[in-house]
Amino acid sequence: MTAPAINTRAKWLNKVKWDEHGLVPVIAQEVGSNDVLMFAWMNREALARTVELGEAVYWSRSRKKLWHKGEESGHVQKVREIRLDCDEDVILLKIEQVDNIACHTGRHSCFFQKFEGTAKSGEWQAVDPVLKDPEQIYTK
Amino acid sequence: MTAPAINTRAKWLNKVKWDEHGLVPVIAQEVGSNDVLMFAWMNREALARTVELGEAVYWSRSRKKLWHKGEESGHVQKVREIRLDCDEDVILLKIEQVDNIACHTGRHSCFFQKFEGTAKSGEWQAVDPVLKDPEQIYTK
Repeated sequence: MTAPAINTRAKWLNKVKWDEHGLVPVIAQEVGSNDVLMFAWMNREALARTVELGEAVYWSRSRKKLWHKGEESGHVQKVREIRLDCDEDVILLKIEQVDNIACHTGRHSCFFQKFEGTAKSGEWQAVDPVLKDPEQIYTK
Repeated sequence: MTAPAINTRAKWLNKVKWDEHGLVPVIAQEVGSNDVLMFAWMNREALARTVELGEAVYWSRSRKKLWHKGEESGHVQKVREIRLDCDEDVILLKIEQVDNIACHTGRHSCFFQKFEGTAKSGEWQAVDPVLKDPEQIYTK
């Protein structure tokens, strides 16, 4: 993402307890349904940009760069509220999910695998529908 | 927590991508309201015990031991469903929260601090009520 410089020294950013990698875990929850759609990470710049832009900007740990959610898929997350937990080391974003799809698999939520069974013999089953073929999402 | 030995080698546990510390992030969401109540971590044993017991057992990173949520406060979390995300490295627990209080501050949810303001001048404000005085919670 190329974007203009942003102030990452604002006082409110100091209240967040960034981990040893300068990151904080982030939960994205859909306004209205309250469904948990995804989980990701932010650094100071990602959080500052999220507030500035009003859309979720994460830090991609695999690609090691800022990730404006939806930049490729169009599945942008409009941020309606930002919460911080009691220990000040986890962020909860309340968002509106464009196109209703947060997951790269084309599902509404990333949490589509449900545990079935017992501790001795369990399995994870995909229980939520694919709303859009991933090949159709990432054609740009 | 003293507890009987448990099988931590079950095949379904291998599907989870444990991080370099052998942990996975866990989001606890209330059944019904869908409120996100807290965020914590589990290791293999914590997840196996959670399934076995039907109550949330986390790994306390600060105390470096298993933590049966509610063991001191009584605020146990009854587990109704367990979900795994698309990358298989985050767990979502759907729980019933005993006494309606998940947070050690005596609030319903740990995410009680709301961001107000702008990127330049923001602040975090506690916006949810304390339901029970923490001194009354931890008297045992």
